[in-house]
Amino acid sequence: MPTLTVFDRSPDEGKGLARDMRVRWALEEVGQPYNVRLISFQAMKEPAHLALHPFGQIPTYEEGGLVLFETGSIIFHIAQQHEGLLPADAPARARAITWMFAALNTMEPPILDLTIARIIEAKMPWAQERLPLVMDRARVRLGQLSARLEDGEWLDGAFSAGDLLMVSVLLRFRIPGLLEEYPNLAAYVARGEARPAYQRAFAAQLAINAPTT
Amino acid sequence: MPTLTVFDRSPDEGKGLARDMRVRWALEEVGQPYNVRLISFQAMKEPAHLALHPFGQIPTYEEGGLVLFETGSIIFHIAQQHEGLLPADAPARARAITWMFAALNTMEPPILDLTIARIIEAKMPWAQERLPLVMDRARVRLGQLSARLEDGEWLDGAFSAGDLLMVSVLLRFRIPGLLEEYPNLAAYVARGEARPAYQRAFAAQLAINAPTT
Repeated sequence: MPTLTVFDRSPDEGKGLARDMRVRWALEEVGQPYNVRLISFQAMKEPAHLALHPFGQIPTYEEGGLVLFETGSIIFHIAQQHEGLLPADAPARARAITWMFAALNTMEPPILDLTIARIIEAKMPWAQERLPLVMDRARVRLGQLSARLEDGEWLDGAFSAGDLLMVSVLLRFRIPGLLEEYPNLAAYVARGEARPAYQRAFAAQLAINAPTT
Repeated sequence: MPTLTVFDRSPDEGKGLARDMRVRWALEEVGQPYNVRLISFQAMKEPAHLALHPFGQIPTYEEGGLVLFETGSIIFHIAQQHEGLLPADAPARARAITWMFAALNTMEPPILDLTIARIIEAKMPWAQERLPLVMDRARVRLGQLSARLEDGEWLDGAFSAGDLLMVSVLLRFRIPGLLEEYPNLAAYVARGEARPAYQRAFAAQLAINAPTT
């Protein structure tokens, strides 16, 4: 059974934005049980964890002697071992893998930029004036993705690991209010969140991360 | 024979920073000839190209009826069709794929940020004050990668598509002067650039993009 490292307390308090959520979702889609090992922010930067993950982040994926990091790679590994996340037909499979990379290399950088602008640089003197520029750059990508999806259910035929990663990235655009500007993308994300596997994964991370009051 | 779309005139004037360089390099590593179709900045944003690439960029990869975009996906496709870019052994292959995603999803976002800070927002009132912050965020990732590489020749055993993408991303840190702060990373990039396949790919894109004086 694979083991994931996850935050002992996610900074999002269980909103499902931490990256282990993506891997949990993939494992639920294919029906693969897993263990989790909780790790603190501090311990993530220590040598024992850096030996598993050179960038000091979560999640990691351990299975026998194999250690993987990077959610794209972990999800691809799961998709190769199990049916249900990538089509068997070679061209359709190559296109689904294209959407995995598009989620992580084209759509995620603008949301990272937004996080920097809204949170990391929130108190800098330029914060207010700069934010609209960052928002507009994100809108360019969201608009292009919206135009490609049109009224499709998923990005290319049946639900795939490409959709899993794209939905996971897109839902981060909800907090700055951008996702709702694109009704077809908002509906696409809602379809992802409605999947039973997503629901199970969400509940599992919430059980650890929900604020205790 | 596959066909790539590439800039008719790259804004880098042939320094090898345009993303078609990565795909050319991969094709040269495996000895696969290819055609190129030149496309202008303007035509990239028109419907005919958007049908191939929803984000209006280069390169695209066409092979029979298959159309791919995203360099990570294209290079993975090439690596699956040919020997030489990914190890055959399953765990080693999974780790090499991990480095492909690490290059594109962990190391590339900071260089995109630097490009925004140095070029796109160069005339904004905050440009000078903000740049050191962006540089320092990039240094965090470069330092972590440098610590993992140590004195290794490549990231994990033999040269792989993970190294190909990592070198391609890292050499973009040379212009803001960051790469040279990490001698082992600078040497790693130089080893990549010294490969005959890299040299052939570089020459091919330079022949199109060199400034005419």
